[in-house]
Amino acid sequence: MCQNCLVKTIHSVNSHFGWDNSIEPTARVAPGAMLEFCCRDSSNGFFTPQSTVSDVTKVPFDTINPVTGPIFVEGAEPGDVLKITLDSFKPSGFGWTANIPGFGLLADQFTDPALVLWHYDKVALSPAAFSDFAKVPLKPFAGTIGLAPALAGLHSVVPPRRVGGNLDIRDLSAGTTLYLPVEVSGALLSIGDTHAAQGDGEVCGTAIESAMDVVVKLDLIKNAPLATPRFSTPGPVTRHLDGAGYEAFTGIGPDLMQAARQAVSNTIDWLCREHHMPAEQAYMLCSVCGDLRISEIVDLPNWVVSFYFPKIVFA
Amino acid sequence: MCQNCLVKTIHSVNSHFGWDNSIEPTARVAPGAMLEFCCRDSSNGFFTPQSTVSDVTKVPFDTINPVTGPIFVEGAEPGDVLKITLDSFKPSGFGWTANIPGFGLLADQFTDPALVLWHYDKVALSPAAFSDFAKVPLKPFAGTIGLAPALAGLHSVVPPRRVGGNLDIRDLSAGTTLYLPVEVSGALLSIGDTHAAQGDGEVCGTAIESAMDVVVKLDLIKNAPLATPRFSTPGPVTRHLDGAGYEAFTGIGPDLMQAARQAVSNTIDWLCREHHMPAEQAYMLCSVCGDLRISEIVDLPNWVVSFYFPKIVFA
Repeated sequence: MCQNCLVKTIHSVNSHFGWDNSIEPTARVAPGAMLEFCCRDSSNGFFTPQSTVSDVTKVPFDTINPVTGPIFVEGAEPGDVLKITLDSFKPSGFGWTANIPGFGLLADQFTDPALVLWHYDKVALSPAAFSDFAKVPLKPFAGTIGLAPALAGLHSVVPPRRVGGNLDIRDLSAGTTLYLPVEVSGALLSIGDTHAAQGDGEVCGTAIESAMDVVVKLDLIKNAPLATPRFSTPGPVTRHLDGAGYEAFTGIGPDLMQAARQAVSNTIDWLCREHHMPAEQAYMLCSVCGDLRISEIVDLPNWVVSFYFPKIVFA
Repeated sequence: MCQNCLVKTIHSVNSHFGWDNSIEPTARVAPGAMLEFCCRDSSNGFFTPQSTVSDVTKVPFDTINPVTGPIFVEGAEPGDVLKITLDSFKPSGFGWTANIPGFGLLADQFTDPALVLWHYDKVALSPAAFSDFAKVPLKPFAGTIGLAPALAGLHSVVPPRRVGGNLDIRDLSAGTTLYLPVEVSGALLSIGDTHAAQGDGEVCGTAIESAMDVVVKLDLIKNAPLATPRFSTPGPVTRHLDGAGYEAFTGIGPDLMQAARQAVSNTIDWLCREHHMPAEQAYMLCSVCGDLRISEIVDLPNWVVSFYFPKIVFA
């Protein structure tokens, strides 16, 4: 407990793998509590500044995506909503991005492992160098914020669910409020998978994966209907990277997934051709800064998905 | 021809329905030309300030989405790229938004016709009143910008294609440059379906449909590879509406279409509950100002689509 600000710290030793409502809570708090979650990165500390690409295929999959928690919120019952106000993020300054074979939007096209290590200014959070190619604006957030599901047993942490989890929503950053539906007594909140930056889509499957401490305030809304997670941002969400505009590439067709794949693939082609980047580097860069948007979803039978690549990374 | 600025005007009497590379060009211009396209609205003038909801089911579908053109660009050949710089938009001040039964992302949920008429300040382009419920920031753009396809015959204007067409990309607004692949000699450019505002997705199937004049500059890039349309924005794309942040609602699951439907449906539920709007009004409001984003597309087997509703409309 920090005596100055009355923030209780949940250390990362209190982490678990996967969701299971029988995991013993690491702390019990009343609504209104502020907590600091110390979060490991999604590799559970496997990647270090000494890591090389040969390590990518050695990631121990049984210990990926540790989440810190769970926290029992007194009075929370199924049918309630847990309101999580994201107060602040204290990132570590080291991060990694990888293409992990078999994982990612274009897994069939990118079958070789790749790894980028990031060293960024954890205080100033100035744009972080991506080799000599680009500088990526940072906006730290938590990829995984979730509650224990009602369904008994151990459930993989990879897919997000109605109770949240691995949402990977880039805007779950400082100032945003996230609302999650409670399915078990005490809600059982855990947080992890912190990212220094990510674009909408997280297309290569990883962001700037980076350990950090996350301060949140917890409130309880009793008997509130909520079908799926919702969130509220206090202001604009793209000002960290939209200043120079975008180069955008479309995918067009009757299947949103194929359109998304086409849009990202076209962007990578352009990065290779115009910015002389190796394709797998372009793919990883897209993942940490580019945004997948559905431009239209009504002009039968063809939808348009656009991938917005921010020009500021080359400024 | 305007003698002051050397902009050639293409009047809306020169419009056609559907794409067909045998349609006689209305003008022939050299690369570098600036043209003003006078565009009818997507109902071809059917909706007027006197229209009522009973008119919605009477829209003559054989004359929807007229496009002004086609323009033959001298020297354009298959394999080239037509670069279209969107210079400026002069909107009419009148617009409409409709729920047309059978059309739209939630067509199964919204089976009754609905109509909203808009009267906005065509010079100041200040946010436009949506009944007493909201004020929607405007950003005029052309929903349909396309070239004639190589494939012979008449093709519906509704679906967008590789050569563009009904892209409905909200950011094809003033200052943006659009690149389209040429498939026939002369490119055969036409423009129409102008909108005073739309969110990413155009979820109810219509935007603020509004006649306007569009000034563009045409340039030719010879022998350039381009798989599908791409565009470049000169600056940020959401500043007209992001100032107060967003209320965002998620859809989560293994199918992007179902996730998108869930996200929009959840937003409508919230607008009905918290802002006391009738559901079909909420649906149409979402279409003109809310954005569908793919938050993550890699956390197997569940993707997250988020619908971002801008709070500024209630400010």
